[in-house]
Amino acid sequence: MRGVVRSVLFGGLRRAGGSGAPRRAGSSSVVAEAPAVRNRILTLQSMNPQVRAVEYAVRGPIVIKAGEIERELQRGIKKPFDEVIKANIGDAHAMGQQPITFLRQVVALCTYPDLLDSPRFPADAKSRASRILQSCGGYSLGSYSTSQGVACIREDVARYIEKRDGGIPADPDNICLTTGASEGIASILKILVSGEGKSRTGVMIPIPQYPLYSAAISEFDAVQVNYYLDEDNCWALDVNELRRSLYQAREYCNPKVLCIINPGNPTGQVQSKHCIEEVIHFAWEEGLFLLADEVYQDNIYSDNCHFHSFKKVLFEMGPEYSSNVELASFHSTSKGYMGECGYRGGYMEVLNLHPDIQAQLMKMLSVRLCPPVSGQAAMDVVVNPPQPSEESYEQFIREKEAVLGNLAQKARVTEELFNQVSGLQCNPLQGAMYAFPRIFIPPRAVEKAKELQMEPDMFYCMQLLEQMGICVVPGSGFGQREGTYHFRMTILPPLEKLKLLLQKVKEFHVRFLDEFS
Amino acid sequence: MRGVVRSVLFGGLRRAGGSGAPRRAGSSSVVAEAPAVRNRILTLQSMNPQVRAVEYAVRGPIVIKAGEIERELQRGIKKPFDEVIKANIGDAHAMGQQPITFLRQVVALCTYPDLLDSPRFPADAKSRASRILQSCGGYSLGSYSTSQGVACIREDVARYIEKRDGGIPADPDNICLTTGASEGIASILKILVSGEGKSRTGVMIPIPQYPLYSAAISEFDAVQVNYYLDEDNCWALDVNELRRSLYQAREYCNPKVLCIINPGNPTGQVQSKHCIEEVIHFAWEEGLFLLADEVYQDNIYSDNCHFHSFKKVLFEMGPEYSSNVELASFHSTSKGYMGECGYRGGYMEVLNLHPDIQAQLMKMLSVRLCPPVSGQAAMDVVVNPPQPSEESYEQFIREKEAVLGNLAQKARVTEELFNQVSGLQCNPLQGAMYAFPRIFIPPRAVEKAKELQMEPDMFYCMQLLEQMGICVVPGSGFGQREGTYHFRMTILPPLEKLKLLLQKVKEFHVRFLDEFS
Repeated sequence: MRGVVRSVLFGGLRRAGGSGAPRRAGSSSVVAEAPAVRNRILTLQSMNPQVRAVEYAVRGPIVIKAGEIERELQRGIKKPFDEVIKANIGDAHAMGQQPITFLRQVVALCTYPDLLDSPRFPADAKSRASRILQSCGGYSLGSYSTSQGVACIREDVARYIEKRDGGIPADPDNICLTTGASEGIASILKILVSGEGKSRTGVMIPIPQYPLYSAAISEFDAVQVNYYLDEDNCWALDVNELRRSLYQAREYCNPKVLCIINPGNPTGQVQSKHCIEEVIHFAWEEGLFLLADEVYQDNIYSDNCHFHSFKKVLFEMGPEYSSNVELASFHSTSKGYMGECGYRGGYMEVLNLHPDIQAQLMKMLSVRLCPPVSGQAAMDVVVNPPQPSEESYEQFIREKEAVLGNLAQKARVTEELFNQVSGLQCNPLQGAMYAFPRIFIPPRAVEKAKELQMEPDMFYCMQLLEQMGICVVPGSGFGQREGTYHFRMTILPPLEKLKLLLQKVKEFHVRFLDEFS
Repeated sequence: MRGVVRSVLFGGLRRAGGSGAPRRAGSSSVVAEAPAVRNRILTLQSMNPQVRAVEYAVRGPIVIKAGEIERELQRGIKKPFDEVIKANIGDAHAMGQQPITFLRQVVALCTYPDLLDSPRFPADAKSRASRILQSCGGYSLGSYSTSQGVACIREDVARYIEKRDGGIPADPDNICLTTGASEGIASILKILVSGEGKSRTGVMIPIPQYPLYSAAISEFDAVQVNYYLDEDNCWALDVNELRRSLYQAREYCNPKVLCIINPGNPTGQVQSKHCIEEVIHFAWEEGLFLLADEVYQDNIYSDNCHFHSFKKVLFEMGPEYSSNVELASFHSTSKGYMGECGYRGGYMEVLNLHPDIQAQLMKMLSVRLCPPVSGQAAMDVVVNPPQPSEESYEQFIREKEAVLGNLAQKARVTEELFNQVSGLQCNPLQGAMYAFPRIFIPPRAVEKAKELQMEPDMFYCMQLLEQMGICVVPGSGFGQREGTYHFRMTILPPLEKLKLLLQKVKEFHVRFLDEFS
């Protein structure tokens, strides 16, 4: 029976074109026997509508366009510039920042343990690598770790948090290593969403936000609940605005989660302890799950700003808070002074999760088996760097301080230069690695953008890219108050290149105002 | 206003216990001032019901129990065995398999390029590493790659596929590097699901299946449509069973995807070319998107079996098929002869996707930024191993053949031994790295399991774990015909340990039958 079906159905087709060579319908080499191109099963209409709704500006149309221009430059097409400067994403090494030597030494030793006898590697790097390998199955980075992450690395993370937070205990069982911070954030949001209609989960996010949040909210079919940061007050978070946002949202959804990004992305503000206390109290009072994105915790530049972790403040507020408020906080290897984005290392710490939920979280993470083990090893060095008594300490501190000092300088230069330009206005870059200046776009340019069916700041950024070869991300990709326009730009290019970039933005802006005034 | 709210609300709590020390409600140190423990926001009732429905047996209750027993052994608690042998997961290095030297050399050089001048590394490894680094931003594994993956690695993947498939062209733009194969599979399924009620997307999967599929189907709220593999015919796929399954499913959902695992997991069967042609024709005829999980493509042990990729067969069937059938196929660094699970490397190749959908897929992948770049580098070595003219070739081939030869021997030994035991029955292990023997469970044991509210094969496996220290996964975690029972066991332990394990299973099985007959 099976044979019969096959020969009847396959015979004719075989004759028509059974060779191995692929052909496309409509291509010039196929004439008489061109196969009918059928409708696709998977189309924009039939696909998952929640995925269709996802937007991710950091790698959106402007970055695709930048790639096209780069390829045109490579093909020798003349442009008013020689290279595209990509300031769209916080990708430190791509901008020339050098890796921290000790981190790479440890990961290389873990990768190829033959090197453990090599005199090229310092003893402290070797002992770190041996310790990590002993906690890996078969002494290999190639084994799966537990889904939660390598045990000794989770212990090191817990000790790092304790030290950072002045001795408040951290439990390795509450730590999950993740594939970058993004995976952790998406996992917690995924587990939180439920409901239909008015009981759909609302997720409160700052505006401007990092678009991972809006993307995850779309994907999981939750409701995005915006609270606006106060641009006139250095992008500070105002708890009255949280309240307004929450109360309005309760009319159409069930807000259950409050997301905080501190230091802010794209806005760079660093929250005061006072502000964090207010946020925690608000979450406690209103029954909100707190999600603290603290991946820029090492990136603080303003002298009068300090990083306070949500966990530390929570515990300092006393047991009514510290044993009740559900909190997940996140860190990453990608930012800070190490900038190891490609390793996709990260961790989350959860607090006060119901034991059933903790088990559900572990079950969910187990489906993806484990985070990349080399990224876990990189995370270990971040949380367990060389100590003053160790051989690599001096070089490590020198490298770390060079990166952070350099970033602080670039933060100042950027703020200063933007504020010299009429029609540009930039808050102090207190932390993180971005400027998010407000741009004045003249009404005629807004009109022009509307004609092109573009957001006005997308039009501005496209012009900046096409005229100057500078790739930044329009503020509309992060959210902004209606009628205001911004762009996000990283401060990662080397200082001289950054100055050039800023000069070019200035020149462009003046010309743009001129053209559309 | 803000200050007032704060002092009123925080004052009392501060006095009650404002120190940094954490306390738990109900712990003995907290008496008079114990804070009321509030209800949690996130509970089993309020959480995402789709996540709650997810099950993942490979790291499920049996593995959690195995972990507990291991910790008891470490604490010195006496058991009838000295160690737990974990045969629950295909984790080669954890079972003592050594990494392929060349792969680790290349990744170590990419990690720490200082080593490029070291005489310890062969020239071919250095040239591979340099080439990869030249395709990375800032010459660093620490930069984000494009979301689709490092360009030169996608080119190498395309060339590998072309060579594997006898010259059928592969386009690097159709390749996405992924975080293991799991991420690729989940991404395609995610983009495919839509609809409500009778138009919900149905996903056809083999039974027994690898539980990533059922987990993803639960998570994305699709409908699982089972087709049964034919145990009496070496777990072959029968297209008539596909038809039965599809036609029945159309009464309650909209089946859009057909998932194939070849070589099979957990069943190890290798599909014949004839079978693949039938499956492709069926998908073409019935309008199904094909998903070919080919991660065990290098793991073929039976002399009369060969791996045929779905893509190759698709093209050999002629343009009516090759320009119409939508296909996504998957490979991984985790299996084969390299067994680099911890690197989370993988790729997918998509064919005939609507251009809109290809753009949507890239957008969706961009939210997670990029797959781990060290995993991408590992994937590069898998698809671009040393060539006969190169320095490392001989060692590479020796290592590769040793691993595969060893696995083939273990496949035979396992099949033979299981079939010597009355009440155990095992199909030939044609490929992959698992045995999935059928076990006879006496009615009295079935009764006993029901009393304990366990699946009978879960009861069997728990007993095997507790009595013998052997950790395997019950067939119910993969799916099986009603009234039949199985378990999945990897053949990865070293030969002598595997023999011991098989001997212990035999001994246990005889005792189990005795006890419950």
